[in-house]
Amino acid sequence: MVVREEARKMKLAAPHMAAASEETRNAALAKIIETLEENRDAIFRENAADVQAAEDANVAKAVIKRLKFDENKLRDAIAGIRQMIGLEDPVGKVTLRRELDEGLVLQRVSVPIGVIGVIFEARPDALIQISALCIKSGNCAILKGGKETARTNKILFGLVHGAAVAAGLPESCLLQVELHNEIDELLKCQGDVDLLIPRGSNQFVQYIMDNTNIPVMGHAAGICHIYLDEKADLAKSVPVIVDAKTQYPAVCNAVETLLVNRKIAADALPVVLEALVAKGVKLRGTKEVAELVKVLQAAGKLGGQKAGAGVDVTCQNAGESLIDAGAYDVEVMGEEDFATEYTDLIISLKLVEDVAEAADHVNKFGSHHTDCILTEDDAAAEYFLQMVDSAGVYRNCSTRFADGFRYGFGAEVGVSTGKLHARGPVGLEGLVTYKYRLIGNGQLVGDYVSGKKQFHHRDF
Amino acid sequence: MVVREEARKMKLAAPHMAAASEETRNAALAKIIETLEENRDAIFRENAADVQAAEDANVAKAVIKRLKFDENKLRDAIAGIRQMIGLEDPVGKVTLRRELDEGLVLQRVSVPIGVIGVIFEARPDALIQISALCIKSGNCAILKGGKETARTNKILFGLVHGAAVAAGLPESCLLQVELHNEIDELLKCQGDVDLLIPRGSNQFVQYIMDNTNIPVMGHAAGICHIYLDEKADLAKSVPVIVDAKTQYPAVCNAVETLLVNRKIAADALPVVLEALVAKGVKLRGTKEVAELVKVLQAAGKLGGQKAGAGVDVTCQNAGESLIDAGAYDVEVMGEEDFATEYTDLIISLKLVEDVAEAADHVNKFGSHHTDCILTEDDAAAEYFLQMVDSAGVYRNCSTRFADGFRYGFGAEVGVSTGKLHARGPVGLEGLVTYKYRLIGNGQLVGDYVSGKKQFHHRDF
Repeated sequence: MVVREEARKMKLAAPHMAAASEETRNAALAKIIETLEENRDAIFRENAADVQAAEDANVAKAVIKRLKFDENKLRDAIAGIRQMIGLEDPVGKVTLRRELDEGLVLQRVSVPIGVIGVIFEARPDALIQISALCIKSGNCAILKGGKETARTNKILFGLVHGAAVAAGLPESCLLQVELHNEIDELLKCQGDVDLLIPRGSNQFVQYIMDNTNIPVMGHAAGICHIYLDEKADLAKSVPVIVDAKTQYPAVCNAVETLLVNRKIAADALPVVLEALVAKGVKLRGTKEVAELVKVLQAAGKLGGQKAGAGVDVTCQNAGESLIDAGAYDVEVMGEEDFATEYTDLIISLKLVEDVAEAADHVNKFGSHHTDCILTEDDAAAEYFLQMVDSAGVYRNCSTRFADGFRYGFGAEVGVSTGKLHARGPVGLEGLVTYKYRLIGNGQLVGDYVSGKKQFHHRDF
Repeated sequence: MVVREEARKMKLAAPHMAAASEETRNAALAKIIETLEENRDAIFRENAADVQAAEDANVAKAVIKRLKFDENKLRDAIAGIRQMIGLEDPVGKVTLRRELDEGLVLQRVSVPIGVIGVIFEARPDALIQISALCIKSGNCAILKGGKETARTNKILFGLVHGAAVAAGLPESCLLQVELHNEIDELLKCQGDVDLLIPRGSNQFVQYIMDNTNIPVMGHAAGICHIYLDEKADLAKSVPVIVDAKTQYPAVCNAVETLLVNRKIAADALPVVLEALVAKGVKLRGTKEVAELVKVLQAAGKLGGQKAGAGVDVTCQNAGESLIDAGAYDVEVMGEEDFATEYTDLIISLKLVEDVAEAADHVNKFGSHHTDCILTEDDAAAEYFLQMVDSAGVYRNCSTRFADGFRYGFGAEVGVSTGKLHARGPVGLEGLVTYKYRLIGNGQLVGDYVSGKKQFHHRDF
């Protein structure tokens, strides 16, 4: 397959896809549900082959878990599509209706972006979710999934594409790209592909961003922060920190850096660190933090029986002294190391003087993804929410909430840390743009330049 | 000056600029009006020096006209700022307010983009307009104007910046870059500059787009089309074509290509071409058009006394035979030449079978700027407006209306032919993005993953 030629074909089909009625697009989604249910056994068979191949290749268990497509995952995927059918049509919304002058009417109408290339990790439900989002929003899509789910992706794509075409969508509405080297061909399709959405490792996303002239939406890094303020409620805050770091450390919205107000550090660190270490989190931090931790240990305030007692840190063994004292050793890191995304059970620690220093640190070292303040002080919270320049600014809740499903968008094609177009979790609204329609009756600009006529700009 | 260092300083000031109240931003605009009025004589003096230098260098008269900053232009500039003060604040608009679950509230709030670099042509009013747009929208801006207005820009920038700081905006809210080689430094400021808006020639804008990793908003080419449909009302349509081509041919929203329905070509071309040629427009076209024009001339239907009579083509000498018959010669052009922006009194001509072929041509050779159908047929119009993939799709009016002021946006920083973020004329709304604010009370994602809690997603 020559990707360039296929992309050009798709570009020509895009206006027809964009013109498909809401009924047709929803009918396609319903047909996808139908065909997935009818072909469940064949899908599971192909998936078992992918899983077997991964096991034979000694792929890590955590990865294999993600490759598996079982009854539960199929049920969730179908529930997701069903929810999407019920969501409001993102296409054809009139967001401005203005009479510029007598009989000269301007409308701004939402329209699909056109042709979108999505490159995603080896997760079978991703193919279904992304296809559904693109169909619902009237976009044509070129899909490239991870190679570890090649057989599952192949059967899923065939079923999804067949259902879409059977419902009346253009043949070129969806295209599957299967070979890794075809990604480089895709990157050269400017003019035909309107948008690329890469998902995966930092390096991979950065590679895409550096090697194409097509606009890219997504995030290379997810360096999320929590700032534990002087006025934080520790009983409420510690579980939030633990959730944000440990609930799923491999994802972009997990916290990487904890900033602690210096005034409460000696009291707060014992509780926080016991809870984190009990979950197996490794500590890194400034020299100041490393020294403070040593002092706290020497004073029996950290790693002892009493520390953390009475605070529900949602981890069973916090407050017990079963943990090796060495687990509290803080590996000293330099300033520039704070721009590191671990996606692992490691956390960076730093003390700051106040919320202003915290916000400055986040703006300097963060990736503008999602950052949180833990505080009972309204003024400090407002300062943080206002001054931190990130897609998500949170107060008193886990950074892990940064997700299209949790925001109620039905699903997401990715999370954007760019500032243009869509920011944060990107759902249907991020997959449309708009056009201006101007309807006249022979109006000339010359008449307005000469002063013969005047605009009156009346909004309906 | 080291642009990189200044941009970094500005980046740190950007959250403070973004937090400036509407009152402060409007006060800054009011103070700019005041200082411009107080210093009018000094401004005119500097401008006279620029004009003198241009005259000494034998710069073309049309260009010199644009350089001049006189009473009228100052009055218009001030009227523009006054209008902007009255416009609704684009910052702080809540566009989504949703309770994800009990006590967990998500808001999407509009915020300034941050640091914007604008590179604009030698037009003194541009500096004032762009500064005002950025101040009103809470953005910091780096400004580089054309060298032919260097002295005017310098005094204007000093006055505008002084007024903004006096009103309470941060010292780093605006920066002027004066040397041409500093543009290349600016292009390397990714991370500190959030957006570049280049204005100027195709080649210049393309150079910017090809040489930076910073997102660029704007348009390289403005290849606008008019399709004259079978059911067009000629008396209404011919003046629209003339206005779109000749009212100001040097700008991006002037029409470059006229597509004519083959069925009416023999009747319509004489009227259309007489009107265009009378305005000095040179003709290019397909071989088919060139031959048809020869036939029409031979038959006395083109260039004779009768052609165009009775149709008001808003040009005095249409219908008269004072024009040299050679002016109707159509220079034959190839397919690929249709992707040419003339920004001059030249028009490309092609016959098409129907509206579908017209839309295909526009999508293939256009620049997705602004395209128009002239027709009384609602079905043909709807097809064109739906299928043409451009920022502006028009019916029965001049493409020259594609302009922020004419759309009622107060002013524009440029016109975008990209599909992401802002499309078409870009006013205040295109200079803001949004952030999500999530306010909780200790909520953990783990509780939702385990099923202990459920989202209810209630919009306020």
